[in-house]
Amino acid sequence: MSTPPDVVRSAYAQLAVTDLAAARWFWVDMLGLHVQHEDADALYLRGTDELTHHSLVLRAGPVAALDHIAYRVRAPEDVERAGRFFAELGRPVRRVPAGAGTHGVGDAVRVVDPLGFTVEFFHGIARGERLIQRYDLHRGARIARLDHFNVCTPDIPAAYAHYRSLGFGCSETIEGDEHELYAAWMYRKQTVHDVAFTGGAGPRLHHVGMATHESHQVLHIADVFGSLGEERHIERGPGRHGVSNAFYVYLRDPDGHRVEIYTSDYYTGDPDHETYRWNVHDDRRRDFWGNAVIESWYKEASPVLDLDGAVQPVSESVLDESAVQVGADGLGIVDGTKG
Amino acid sequence: MSTPPDVVRSAYAQLAVTDLAAARWFWVDMLGLHVQHEDADALYLRGTDELTHHSLVLRAGPVAALDHIAYRVRAPEDVERAGRFFAELGRPVRRVPAGAGTHGVGDAVRVVDPLGFTVEFFHGIARGERLIQRYDLHRGARIARLDHFNVCTPDIPAAYAHYRSLGFGCSETIEGDEHELYAAWMYRKQTVHDVAFTGGAGPRLHHVGMATHESHQVLHIADVFGSLGEERHIERGPGRHGVSNAFYVYLRDPDGHRVEIYTSDYYTGDPDHETYRWNVHDDRRRDFWGNAVIESWYKEASPVLDLDGAVQPVSESVLDESAVQVGADGLGIVDGTKG
Amino acid sequence: MSTPPDVVRSAYAQLAVTDLAAARWFWVDMLGLHVQHEDADALYLRGTDELTHHSLVLRAGPVAALDHIAYRVRAPEDVERAGRFFAELGRPVRRVPAGAGTHGVGDAVRVVDPLGFTVEFFHGIARGERLIQRYDLHRGARIARLDHFNVCTPDIPAAYAHYRSLGFGCSETIEGDEHELYAAWMYRKQTVHDVAFTGGAGPRLHHVGMATHESHQVLHIADVFGSLGEERHIERGPGRHGVSNAFYVYLRDPDGHRVEIYTSDYYTGDPDHETYRWNVHDDRRRDFWGNAVIESWYKEASPVLDLDGAVQPVSESVLDESAVQVGADGLGIVDGTKG
Amino acid sequence: MSTPPDVVRSAYAQLAVTDLAAARWFWVDMLGLHVQHEDADALYLRGTDELTHHSLVLRAGPVAALDHIAYRVRAPEDVERAGRFFAELGRPVRRVPAGAGTHGVGDAVRVVDPLGFTVEFFHGIARGERLIQRYDLHRGARIARLDHFNVCTPDIPAAYAHYRSLGFGCSETIEGDEHELYAAWMYRKQTVHDVAFTGGAGPRLHHVGMATHESHQVLHIADVFGSLGEERHIERGPGRHGVSNAFYVYLRDPDGHRVEIYTSDYYTGDPDHETYRWNVHDDRRRDFWGNAVIESWYKEASPVLDLDGAVQPVSESVLDESAVQVGADGLGIVDGTKG
Repeated sequence: MSTPPDVVRSAYAQLAVTDLAAARWFWVDMLGLHVQHEDADALYLRGTDELTHHSLVLRAGPVAALDHIAYRVRAPEDVERAGRFFAELGRPVRRVPAGAGTHGVGDAVRVVDPLGFTVEFFHGIARGERLIQRYDLHRGARIARLDHFNVCTPDIPAAYAHYRSLGFGCSETIEGDEHELYAAWMYRKQTVHDVAFTGGAGPRLHHVGMATHESHQVLHIADVFGSLGEERHIERGPGRHGVSNAFYVYLRDPDGHRVEIYTSDYYTGDPDHETYRWNVHDDRRRDFWGNAVIESWYKEASPVLDLDGAVQPVSESVLDESAVQVGADGLGIVDGTKG
Repeated sequence: MSTPPDVVRSAYAQLAVTDLAAARWFWVDMLGLHVQHEDADALYLRGTDELTHHSLVLRAGPVAALDHIAYRVRAPEDVERAGRFFAELGRPVRRVPAGAGTHGVGDAVRVVDPLGFTVEFFHGIARGERLIQRYDLHRGARIARLDHFNVCTPDIPAAYAHYRSLGFGCSETIEGDEHELYAAWMYRKQTVHDVAFTGGAGPRLHHVGMATHESHQVLHIADVFGSLGEERHIERGPGRHGVSNAFYVYLRDPDGHRVEIYTSDYYTGDPDHETYRWNVHDDRRRDFWGNAVIESWYKEASPVLDLDGAVQPVSESVLDESAVQVGADGLGIVDGTKG
Repeated sequence: MSTPPDVVRSAYAQLAVTDLAAARWFWVDMLGLHVQHEDADALYLRGTDELTHHSLVLRAGPVAALDHIAYRVRAPEDVERAGRFFAELGRPVRRVPAGAGTHGVGDAVRVVDPLGFTVEFFHGIARGERLIQRYDLHRGARIARLDHFNVCTPDIPAAYAHYRSLGFGCSETIEGDEHELYAAWMYRKQTVHDVAFTGGAGPRLHHVGMATHESHQVLHIADVFGSLGEERHIERGPGRHGVSNAFYVYLRDPDGHRVEIYTSDYYTGDPDHETYRWNVHDDRRRDFWGNAVIESWYKEASPVLDLDGAVQPVSESVLDESAVQVGADGLGIVDGTKG
Repeated sequence: MSTPPDVVRSAYAQLAVTDLAAARWFWVDMLGLHVQHEDADALYLRGTDELTHHSLVLRAGPVAALDHIAYRVRAPEDVERAGRFFAELGRPVRRVPAGAGTHGVGDAVRVVDPLGFTVEFFHGIARGERLIQRYDLHRGARIARLDHFNVCTPDIPAAYAHYRSLGFGCSETIEGDEHELYAAWMYRKQTVHDVAFTGGAGPRLHHVGMATHESHQVLHIADVFGSLGEERHIERGPGRHGVSNAFYVYLRDPDGHRVEIYTSDYYTGDPDHETYRWNVHDDRRRDFWGNAVIESWYKEASPVLDLDGAVQPVSESVLDESAVQVGADGLGIVDGTKG
């Protein structure tokens, strides 16, 4: 088996949206992402702490879907390593030279990974002006940077094994009594995750996670949606995650793409960082305060496109975390009380 | 009709609890209220900004219930005015001289008001040491002061009319399309409320509201309960109220008494302050982010005791706000989504 | 002596500014005050929680100065009471009928008070749309409302006695060892103050205090000024006051007018609320963390205009708080250390 | 030249303190660090997010000084690499087998580095119970983890070159008009720094930096010191750094050791992360709001001990940042105003 690419971090997601103006309202006017570049059919956005060209691309398209997720790799030769690695796995691989793919990105390869997602690996990317200390431009959710991707996949152990083979560490899991794996959070950069797996029909994109610096900024973006009577875009939270310990809110964009505004996880960079394992019956795992998870959060997700832009078929999952009856969590609201 | 007493503010609630040690754990060890005084069967507690002896009394008793709520009046003669006012209404009135009633409180009258609640009016009260700037002693929810009482009563218009006759202003209401009154928030001090009415079987105490200074303190107390696996005490929230605009969390004590940790409402002291009216179909009224209200929050409340300590019978309400179908709010979760 | 007017609260300040565009940049673009009305030579501004027409008027004029401060009174007849009260004191009094004075304000009287300040008393004022829950419009320092005026006056005991005669309570003082009065904080609404006196040459306006809801908003406005290289507008803080316990930052507008962004003081509405007395040698009185007060904060202030718009002459003060040597406070930095 | 050790991060500082009980009051009772282990003459402390045994050791000793700073290395063989690396530099090197050195730490080497600091490199360290979600135990400054060391050294370019040779990146610098280096911030983990250099007589320890999650926690610890009249322990801030963008407060322990409570810097993990260069004349570099730096902060620091526990002699620096006259910054307060 060839050497895997040295992945630095989750770098950007490219979403197909059916109404670019509506998407701009949501991601730019409301969430406050910075428009680094735009052309007739796409917006290139980033957070205030990001020094690379974009962490989110919104592309106008006929169907709302995930085009691809992208990881940055450490060196130019890691792009080629990625191509070889997935070719050896028998997965589709396509070279995308600089200029032929996403604006601002250098030479890249795109693959369909074993989970069925289109994934890009690149090293070179244009830079953006430093906005960290341009507080005058910070708006909306004051998003600092992309934090992670969360993907729905029917076979969590397979997803886990694949990302382990790519050199990812595992910070946290949700497991059954027999250690059957319901969910996993995996990282390359020194945070809780760059990618996480939610059990369910897949491949589908559950959400992109965007980091902000303090919890009051999470509250503020929820307040802004409420102000305008647009509270239907708030799907779940604000709340504290058990897993990751981060404070969150989940929002849905006009196409139903889900974004998590997320703050304050912890350092995972030590070489012997241990996986923290949550039992699926602990009702604090998804919300540390024991608040119920809304059904749509477990059931709905964005379809993903293959290398040619066709919607990938999905497979059903084997284990269903949302079916686990754990007090207020899951969908176990039986009698209208939490107890 | 005689002159009503000049009420200054909601002053304290006295709760009967069935296990004083368990109550102490909740209110003192967890919430961080300051113990101003204690004897064999009662605890006298206050927040850090309060300069009077207590804002909450926990009394050991055979049944978990509200003993009484108490309002401070402006002058000693307002105590007598209160007695005359309720006597003229034909309500039970009992004089409670200093030393005969609640520790620390001067001459008082206790009445059963037209809503069926035992209500005390007093002027004199012992003082407590200034703790506002004793940040070293601030713990738990860092409660600054009692903010309000919320009471369940079946006839909201009658409750509204009664408190108007006592000189209370009305900051906000929830109303139906024909302006039928579902709920009202009424004040004497210059905040959104000293008392609010929730429609439902009554008389019952829905909750006492305790004010803290900033929203992160509301989040922190929820985190502390989660830390200890005591998240069952978190009933609803944290969230933003539509009504009052305050940020809140509702907790239940070991006896089921409900407390709201509440922060950041607005000034209501102008003489022409107008009532702000919410339509019962606006799903932001109870939670500004459109999150559903849990059923127990609408249905459960503490019984109240009469002047002799017997549990008051309750009457059912006419209008049921929780039955109003408004998207995610009320209990209108039909298909597991918010929309 | 006639009955004094029943003052409700500090209501607005009208400032003469020499460059209205520059003032607009500071107060609107930077601080985020809402423009309720504007005409060729004036801006009428308010905070998000204010339901009356304005709390700050910026008027173009040849000299940067305070036109007048204004108090709202409880009833229309209190306007006339104010006129009689100051006439009996032998002070200049001028009736200003609705339409003849400040836009949006009803019948008023303007007086030159015994401290030498032009002070308006009014009851009627136009209303403004409710913005409390328009979080989408909250910007800059997210100012909720005017909180108080702080005025420089050479004779603090005389200022204290005057405002006592107007029915103001006193929340806090700074006193010498013999109880000589260095400063006082006085209120009508149920906060720490509507007006405060800083010893120094007077009459001059030390600052207007604007309230915001949480401390992170105070930090944010300082960050915004830093972002643009406009940090010279940040004069002092952010910091915690000993007096009032509020968290603050002092800013200077392009004309040098000082504004305090202020959050989180305490309730003062009880009838027997006691004055809290700070000794002038306690270095926490002006900054609870013992940080030194910058000299300009003690020495500089805005001139005030008389009823005809002429700049009032100033008298020097007798007691000089800034000359008191108290460790790091005052200007007692002798050896470059705090101790 | 041999391969340098692969440093993971700044790991712990060991301080000699002259009064262990007083040090415990400051670091444990006030700051809230968790006591992981203690014996007769030492305390082993850590923050709530740290999973390794300690990040601060307080050892009773005759003179207040830095015993050593310690870096964790990626693999056991990196310990030996460190020994060889410094031996080749001609620096003193001492092997410290597990059990012979600091409690909880495995095999280590200690060296005197070219800057004159005693520095330990280790790989193995005992683990501590996970406290991240034990909010019930979070107290004081709610310190999450050690963030960095800041050291005084007279020759900044030499310090920079040495740490570059150890594989550290450089996030930010302060430079003169001719790019002469006044200060540098260098990192291995993906934050702004693990170590920073302040120009001045050295070797001396300027401070240890401890990270907390949100800015209100920085404010709170300042408030706690003020509450107890212990504000002399607050040396500088709270404030926003220009360099690093973090929100900070500097405290001095009973021996004068300085600690920075620090929150919210940014991700530096990309392979081409660029150094951000501040000009020494920008008064925002040390405080983003332009507030003056107190002289003691520039002048005072802790002596350091050699491998045998003797106090190292210090050399004077060539460049003196504090002598640069930049408006309010440095010590350039000429006329008592900021401008």
